[in-house]
Amino acid sequence: MSAGARTMAIAPHRTEGTVDAGLREQVAWSCRILAMGGHGDYTLGHVSARAASGDHILMKPNGLGLEEVAPDDLLALDLEGAKLSGAGPIHLEYVLHTEIYKARPDIGSVVHTHPPYATALGATDATLELLNHDAVLFREGLAYFDDTAELIVRPEQGAAVAAALGNRRVLVMRGHGLIVTGETVPWATYAALTLERVLQIQSIARSLGNLLPMSPEMADRVYPAKYRDDHLAKYWDYLVRQVRRAGLAEGMPQPGDDRA
Amino acid sequence: MSAGARTMAIAPHRTEGTVDAGLREQVAWSCRILAMGGHGDYTLGHVSARAASGDHILMKPNGLGLEEVAPDDLLALDLEGAKLSGAGPIHLEYVLHTEIYKARPDIGSVVHTHPPYATALGATDATLELLNHDAVLFREGLAYFDDTAELIVRPEQGAAVAAALGNRRVLVMRGHGLIVTGETVPWATYAALTLERVLQIQSIARSLGNLLPMSPEMADRVYPAKYRDDHLAKYWDYLVRQVRRAGLAEGMPQPGDDRA
Amino acid sequence: MSAGARTMAIAPHRTEGTVDAGLREQVAWSCRILAMGGHGDYTLGHVSARAASGDHILMKPNGLGLEEVAPDDLLALDLEGAKLSGAGPIHLEYVLHTEIYKARPDIGSVVHTHPPYATALGATDATLELLNHDAVLFREGLAYFDDTAELIVRPEQGAAVAAALGNRRVLVMRGHGLIVTGETVPWATYAALTLERVLQIQSIARSLGNLLPMSPEMADRVYPAKYRDDHLAKYWDYLVRQVRRAGLAEGMPQPGDDRA
Amino acid sequence: MSAGARTMAIAPHRTEGTVDAGLREQVAWSCRILAMGGHGDYTLGHVSARAASGDHILMKPNGLGLEEVAPDDLLALDLEGAKLSGAGPIHLEYVLHTEIYKARPDIGSVVHTHPPYATALGATDATLELLNHDAVLFREGLAYFDDTAELIVRPEQGAAVAAALGNRRVLVMRGHGLIVTGETVPWATYAALTLERVLQIQSIARSLGNLLPMSPEMADRVYPAKYRDDHLAKYWDYLVRQVRRAGLAEGMPQPGDDRA
Repeated sequence: MSAGARTMAIAPHRTEGTVDAGLREQVAWSCRILAMGGHGDYTLGHVSARAASGDHILMKPNGLGLEEVAPDDLLALDLEGAKLSGAGPIHLEYVLHTEIYKARPDIGSVVHTHPPYATALGATDATLELLNHDAVLFREGLAYFDDTAELIVRPEQGAAVAAALGNRRVLVMRGHGLIVTGETVPWATYAALTLERVLQIQSIARSLGNLLPMSPEMADRVYPAKYRDDHLAKYWDYLVRQVRRAGLAEGMPQPGDDRA
Repeated sequence: MSAGARTMAIAPHRTEGTVDAGLREQVAWSCRILAMGGHGDYTLGHVSARAASGDHILMKPNGLGLEEVAPDDLLALDLEGAKLSGAGPIHLEYVLHTEIYKARPDIGSVVHTHPPYATALGATDATLELLNHDAVLFREGLAYFDDTAELIVRPEQGAAVAAALGNRRVLVMRGHGLIVTGETVPWATYAALTLERVLQIQSIARSLGNLLPMSPEMADRVYPAKYRDDHLAKYWDYLVRQVRRAGLAEGMPQPGDDRA
Repeated sequence: MSAGARTMAIAPHRTEGTVDAGLREQVAWSCRILAMGGHGDYTLGHVSARAASGDHILMKPNGLGLEEVAPDDLLALDLEGAKLSGAGPIHLEYVLHTEIYKARPDIGSVVHTHPPYATALGATDATLELLNHDAVLFREGLAYFDDTAELIVRPEQGAAVAAALGNRRVLVMRGHGLIVTGETVPWATYAALTLERVLQIQSIARSLGNLLPMSPEMADRVYPAKYRDDHLAKYWDYLVRQVRRAGLAEGMPQPGDDRA
Repeated sequence: MSAGARTMAIAPHRTEGTVDAGLREQVAWSCRILAMGGHGDYTLGHVSARAASGDHILMKPNGLGLEEVAPDDLLALDLEGAKLSGAGPIHLEYVLHTEIYKARPDIGSVVHTHPPYATALGATDATLELLNHDAVLFREGLAYFDDTAELIVRPEQGAAVAAALGNRRVLVMRGHGLIVTGETVPWATYAALTLERVLQIQSIARSLGNLLPMSPEMADRVYPAKYRDDHLAKYWDYLVRQVRRAGLAEGMPQPGDDRA
């Protein structure tokens, strides 16, 4: 093994890149935002999005860390996992994505990562408590998958994960990691970041005293004003700027670019 | 949603900027100091100050992260929340500010953020303990607001929050976040930073053993020598230098500027 | 003591450097990867590798922090600890390395560091729990050495440590620190990083609720697909890129170098 | 209060600077090392050293953060606290230093800071446990001062603190902070850093299980080989290099300087 530099994107696939260009960029930003938010685990973890055409998805390739993914690195896969375009290898667990997209037409983006707080939660008997506004995003509760802690590599395993997800936003895979879904890439990304944040607050709260969660009824009252598409648009633009300030935007279009 | 760069301040409102110039700068530094201190939550959280004229306040606009606020971005609002000047949108919860200014003529600055330790404290039955000099700043105790965890968007809600604050320095909004007030921007900013610090120390202390807080009488003896305007002036100047060293001063006047 | 700059590598030992060149580079990257992962403790901690010839090892010299080690800084020692080449002083505890290489022909690399989580674990009655995929790497359990907390400086002490290690991957030296071994430098390095990560997750999990570890049978099912040489090669290349991005590659060959 | 830049050292006091030049540099590095190690608290905390002549000390001035102190900023004070040279204001608590130097001829340097772990420890009934090599440095136990949590500003208060310190290395001032002493600036600095580290490990250990400290006899056996002047010299040189890499050496002599 040499001290190899990252070369995968040196020959960008401009032809493919012009299809789904905006979505490719969103997925790449999502990867970098998640890296910034502590979701990185070597080259593991992946983000995908359903293309507007509906017949394929765009997915992070294997071999890159989350903060290294550029728009042209993304693979186009059909819903059976066949590679339509892209140079890098497919993550073993692509069925997590394809089977969820099949089962949930409302979902436009899937995140699978192993962040410390959510992974830790999945290894305990604790549940996410309604401690603050962040928690309200998950007021319908988290789904859990505990059939196996193995890698999910076969379509029927992916389908079992999708079934465990049901109609929720988030699935915790016990002994393994996290699935966060969203109607759009920004929603899935934001929910993944916010879940880690709320669990960190829950850990701190337990270090300070006994928990006083809000009632489910209160969470229902908080939700509509707090979680809106127009708020999310502002958060997303901010997160992209934050990635740039953190120096994690190498290989991404610059603000003045044609493609930006 | 595009990977939009921050453009809000590109056309600075120099005309407005020349009114309240020093105070605008203080509020912008306060936002950046709070970001550096871990108070950021996407584009949420806001700082305001009462103008010397008494007839309006200056407040962070919506859509920017705390570390992105420049003096010319600030909105001038009257005490009913009408925008007198400024290009950006008003935060939904501006009534937190306006109603507190109406109820408390002694207050010159209001901070509302969702930092992890104070937010966590508000979700527990714990109280701030008098563990060290930092805690002494809050020796009169924290006020709590638990009427609702909803966003505070109507004047009567803001008035209820102001009533819960009473004559204290800090209000914890259960399930939501923090209000910190001060006679000046530096005092409110410093108190907000120090509250997170003391709660972090409280969390560590509980991880080490049983707490041995000082007595209220001791806190009263510590306070006068510890908390003085001349100390605060030094801390503030230091915090501004620290923001510069952290690379978070883009868009702020440089040390040699006319306006600095 | 002056504010001395690091000068040890100013006169590189090119002659020695050309022997074991690739392995020297791996050991130097390993040191920097471990520094990035929180294993640093002033100039303490060391990494070694067995040379392909089998008659000597390459080992970090004393006097440098982990993030400062360059390929030409490494000492070549025979298995009795005699220095064959290299300018810097030998770490007192070199026998930890030499005695393990003698006892375990399958081992190609040894890491000894004092990272916070593993050091803390060794000071408790806790064991590593099978909480997630990271933990599965250690499914055979950790070995412990508790004959003494003293520095291990004599060959018979090193032999006792090697005996306590037995056929395991990791040994926790109670009151002292950590030994992690691997067939290759990347495996030992990765295991050392991953151990800290899994213990951090264990600490977080305990802060959230009661632990639900997977069964040993499940860990045996997870292992083969999760821990493979080809995965490791990707992680290693990523870690080297991460060190470069973190600005910790000064003195290392650049991607375009002849030696890279 | 303006967003004032740090200007205190702009007119360096070269005349004074040439006396005690090496010691001035050590104290300034110490301040920056402590800042890097998390001892900063706005402009609070101070380091001093006894001059070789024995008739004065060099001490950090008030108004600067620890990472901002340059050699020429240091004040020369006699043992009654009269300023012999230096432009900045004297810290209120200078008597902590002067009274300890009077009581302990063996001490060449005094650090007073408010770091989170030691401050937290002082607010509990816990004691430092002999969990690892770091803890062995403090095997004789910590002294405690609990007469008052007030600022220590009068000579008789300083003398009471010195009496509470007795012949120990470290004193925890309950409700306030930390005093660490050493024969030299590097020893006091290193001990202050190491104390925070060992308490962090103690906190982590308690999060993992029940503590298994080593025996006092074992600590006595570990100490002589672990804590030696020649080791310390290496750690100190490393810490200075680490400050440079962290970008915290502005205003300090560069490696090639005449004064370095």
